[in-house]
Amino acid sequence: MWTDRRLLDLLHIEHPIVLSPMAGVADAALAIAVAQAGGLGSIPCGMLDVAQTRAQVDTFRAAAGGKPVNLNFFVHAMPARNNTREHDWREALAPYYRELGVDPAAAMASASRMPFDDAMCALLEEVRPEVVSFHYGLPADALLRRVKAAGCKVLSSATTVAEARWLADNGCDAVIAQGFEAGGHRGMFLSLDTATQVGTFALLPQIVDAVTVPVIAAGGIADARGIVAALALGAAGVQIGTAYLHCPESKVTPPHRAALKEARDDATVLTNVISGRPARGFVNRLIREMGPMSDLAPDFPYAGAAVQPLHAKAQAQGSGEFSGMLAGQAAALGRAVPAQALTHSLVETAQALLRRMAG
Amino acid sequence: MWTDRRLLDLLHIEHPIVLSPMAGVADAALAIAVAQAGGLGSIPCGMLDVAQTRAQVDTFRAAAGGKPVNLNFFVHAMPARNNTREHDWREALAPYYRELGVDPAAAMASASRMPFDDAMCALLEEVRPEVVSFHYGLPADALLRRVKAAGCKVLSSATTVAEARWLADNGCDAVIAQGFEAGGHRGMFLSLDTATQVGTFALLPQIVDAVTVPVIAAGGIADARGIVAALALGAAGVQIGTAYLHCPESKVTPPHRAALKEARDDATVLTNVISGRPARGFVNRLIREMGPMSDLAPDFPYAGAAVQPLHAKAQAQGSGEFSGMLAGQAAALGRAVPAQALTHSLVETAQALLRRMAG
Repeated sequence: MWTDRRLLDLLHIEHPIVLSPMAGVADAALAIAVAQAGGLGSIPCGMLDVAQTRAQVDTFRAAAGGKPVNLNFFVHAMPARNNTREHDWREALAPYYRELGVDPAAAMASASRMPFDDAMCALLEEVRPEVVSFHYGLPADALLRRVKAAGCKVLSSATTVAEARWLADNGCDAVIAQGFEAGGHRGMFLSLDTATQVGTFALLPQIVDAVTVPVIAAGGIADARGIVAALALGAAGVQIGTAYLHCPESKVTPPHRAALKEARDDATVLTNVISGRPARGFVNRLIREMGPMSDLAPDFPYAGAAVQPLHAKAQAQGSGEFSGMLAGQAAALGRAVPAQALTHSLVETAQALLRRMAG
Repeated sequence: MWTDRRLLDLLHIEHPIVLSPMAGVADAALAIAVAQAGGLGSIPCGMLDVAQTRAQVDTFRAAAGGKPVNLNFFVHAMPARNNTREHDWREALAPYYRELGVDPAAAMASASRMPFDDAMCALLEEVRPEVVSFHYGLPADALLRRVKAAGCKVLSSATTVAEARWLADNGCDAVIAQGFEAGGHRGMFLSLDTATQVGTFALLPQIVDAVTVPVIAAGGIADARGIVAALALGAAGVQIGTAYLHCPESKVTPPHRAALKEARDDATVLTNVISGRPARGFVNRLIREMGPMSDLAPDFPYAGAAVQPLHAKAQAQGSGEFSGMLAGQAAALGRAVPAQALTHSLVETAQALLRRMAG
């Protein structure tokens, strides 16, 4: 059915479609549906602890049987706390606390996004997921060796050719080429300069030319046309996120779901005010007034601690104006259909397009 | 040979490849080569006067016989001169004037990029080019009516779905979807906010869905893979610029040619310090130290007047550090082969890829 079988053989999947792991807005439910349709189900674990991660894997396996699962983790280095900067950030946000009637003491003391560590690695050694994907590079050598020794295939995201080469040289079994269009956090780790970030159309073939491992295209792919275009540019498969956020299985808040439904091509920006690292999401009041890029935002993940209570209060009132409503530039191409049906439709429509294009 | 013939029939060309009109770095020589290979040859006229434009058309027609030609113009509204802002801009650049030994009086009194006007329209009525393309929207109704009455097919660039709809509603025969990856000036005209600009992968299918006229994909397309990917996303054809700058027929300066040869995926940024409007080009000292986006830069095209003498002096010394070396994010995919051979190669390789992808 697919002429390029590299990714299918590597990951033991039927179709070259990887569900993007979307921390905070998706869980095993979405992964199960995509896996049942023959894609790779991904569970975002970057905001979960070990027990929660174990429960997600159990849920997936109870429903998806022998289908492979991908567990995704952040691998950022935790920055030293900068009390001055965090204080200044809280001061900058103070008017919103007053306006929304939020107690400043509600600001979270710790961050909700923690890097992959020894305890999580031990869980991997126990549950042995078929695939593990990382964001922001790769974990330290000792941890990575354990992950690979557990039999997990390793993926990570590159936003430049240099990052792709680094990932391939350091043990990735496949590289995700994350174009500028992609929703969510940019996987950038060799540079944090957003001005030179590269669109999928230009990034993908240059990464394909630079590495020998299979390349998975991400960013702007939300329908069958995007899948075929990615294959034309040399991808062995695609990673799709935002299109699946429309599905009933996603865990987006009502304002986020509404934003997806009303999305325009130019509705999103790269912003660091949600977490401290550049991420693409829908423009809302917080981003419009404080960003999109702010020099005040503390380093990832600490910027999020002071924003979280504003998000919680506003969201309880039905507003997404202080939330990180992450999404990519092709959000408007998505449709609110169940994820298994969406996956089947993507496959069938892509196959038909491939046949039609040959004339 | 091509299953989608909409653009071929509209523009009377053999292959769905439009040479991007690149003011200042290309002329009839490149257009002739592309036209002879069956693509649409484009002559950038935005920095030419009427006599120079007439001479370019004569040169093209003497060499390319009955092949259609596309003349390209800027249609920006000239802003009122802002003496304070221009003074501040010159002050900001003064250290470079001193360092390079350039007389401040050398700053140009007027701009080198003028909008399409009555005199140029009269020339079109005389020489009747088969195609006219505009950048920054469309000319005033009275001028546009004369262009269309002269039998010219009209194209213009859209950087958002809203701009594409506006162009289609206002008389464009085809719309160029200019993605974020594209080199040169962004065609944006309904908004100048670069933060929400859209990558080709996401922009193209959304514009295809929004308008009924044929859509030409631009931005990040530099080889056959890009052509096939654009067709998959729904384009009726492609516009290619940077890949042709590598050709011996282009008029790039030696530093610009060297930058193209050494290009990396992340070598360019959007900057307004070259002209006052956002354009994508190679990062150099001027852009690194003054930009990439500067609040000081006077409105387009006046920012360029004070930069021009620095460019001239540095370039005479073999340096591109003060030049607008415009290029897109796929520059590294280009090769220094003659433009006619490049065009033939793009066509043959794209056709082979289309056959191969069908399996």
